[in-house]
Amino acid sequence: MTTARAPRRTGQPGRPGYDLDSLLAVAVKVFNERGYDGTSMEALAQKLGITKSSIYHHVSGKEELLDLALARALNALFAVTTEAGATSGPYLERLEYLVRRSVEVLVAELPYVTLLLRVRGNTKVERAALARRREFDDFVSMLVVEAAKEGDLRPGIDPALTSRLVFGMVNSLIEWYRPRSGESVRELADAVVELTFDGLRREG
Amino acid sequence: MTTARAPRRTGQPGRPGYDLDSLLAVAVKVFNERGYDGTSMEALAQKLGITKSSIYHHVSGKEELLDLALARALNALFAVTTEAGATSGPYLERLEYLVRRSVEVLVAELPYVTLLLRVRGNTKVERAALARRREFDDFVSMLVVEAAKEGDLRPGIDPALTSRLVFGMVNSLIEWYRPRSGESVRELADAVVELTFDGLRREG
Repeated sequence: MTTARAPRRTGQPGRPGYDLDSLLAVAVKVFNERGYDGTSMEALAQKLGITKSSIYHHVSGKEELLDLALARALNALFAVTTEAGATSGPYLERLEYLVRRSVEVLVAELPYVTLLLRVRGNTKVERAALARRREFDDFVSMLVVEAAKEGDLRPGIDPALTSRLVFGMVNSLIEWYRPRSGESVRELADAVVELTFDGLRREG
Repeated sequence: MTTARAPRRTGQPGRPGYDLDSLLAVAVKVFNERGYDGTSMEALAQKLGITKSSIYHHVSGKEELLDLALARALNALFAVTTEAGATSGPYLERLEYLVRRSVEVLVAELPYVTLLLRVRGNTKVERAALARRREFDDFVSMLVVEAAKEGDLRPGIDPALTSRLVFGMVNSLIEWYRPRSGESVRELADAVVELTFDGLRREG
């Protein structure tokens, strides 16, 4: 999946056209810049260089665009929870896998996940997205609980608090990570995993 | 310092009155709820239950309120960088001190730091705040660099990336930490410090 692409011509020759995917990419960019609440369909049409009715050809309105964008981020994150690395083997390794893959998903779907993480729950679509985020958090907490039961975590770790802190760190990527800023995704994921599981302090 | 208090009467008896501190507390709450850009002086006056001219008695306008609020957060954070714990002893211990005290400052000044961390640089005041945030980040990076030189960090750690990740975790508190949600500040700071320096994995 690509997160942004040049508009594809889909309409009559000579008319700028978008397919749903490229329209969504632009909408998400505008939502992230101006805020979802602060973006009107009028402003969106202007940014796209098309009429409002051309947008309504693809979606019923602004909320459907939000719904599609949040679904893309959530589906990518939830897909990880069903991958073999997250569903088999010692729980500590599942957790490590989930953290690493979440970093990769955040980078691959940066604008969509950014939108997701800024959702405040003002609409039904937003509240549904928050509910699914909580489901994801619960999955992470479960992995921490089970890893502790298997004796692989330092004693005294609070699973819910730990999940929040680790994903607080992972999610902070949306604030400062910019593609091609020097680090490869692999190096970034390595750094997050090493910090999370082994900490900064040299052993011994 | 308190982050919120009941409005104090300062004007004539029978008229609701605010001193600058209590006015600022309400303004910051409204900015965090509706966004700074989305809050008019009119809406602020309405929320305060006073006239706009009563606000102008204290400040020149909305931007001065923002400036004062951001200064409060920044001053509290920078104060930590000059405390003895952050300026003497092995650099790893200074870093640990800074992380712990930053958690405490975030909790004590939650609404003010929340506003600071959401600043995007649309105005001169916001850009100045972002510049001071970068100064703080540079101080953290310096501590990481020096701790590495002293041989106290795992080899191969990238100082700038590490600073971003650690403070990404610390700053994520504004998204989910709510006072009296069960954990004491001490327990919260302990959890952040342990995760940062020793990681989740049981040694051995």
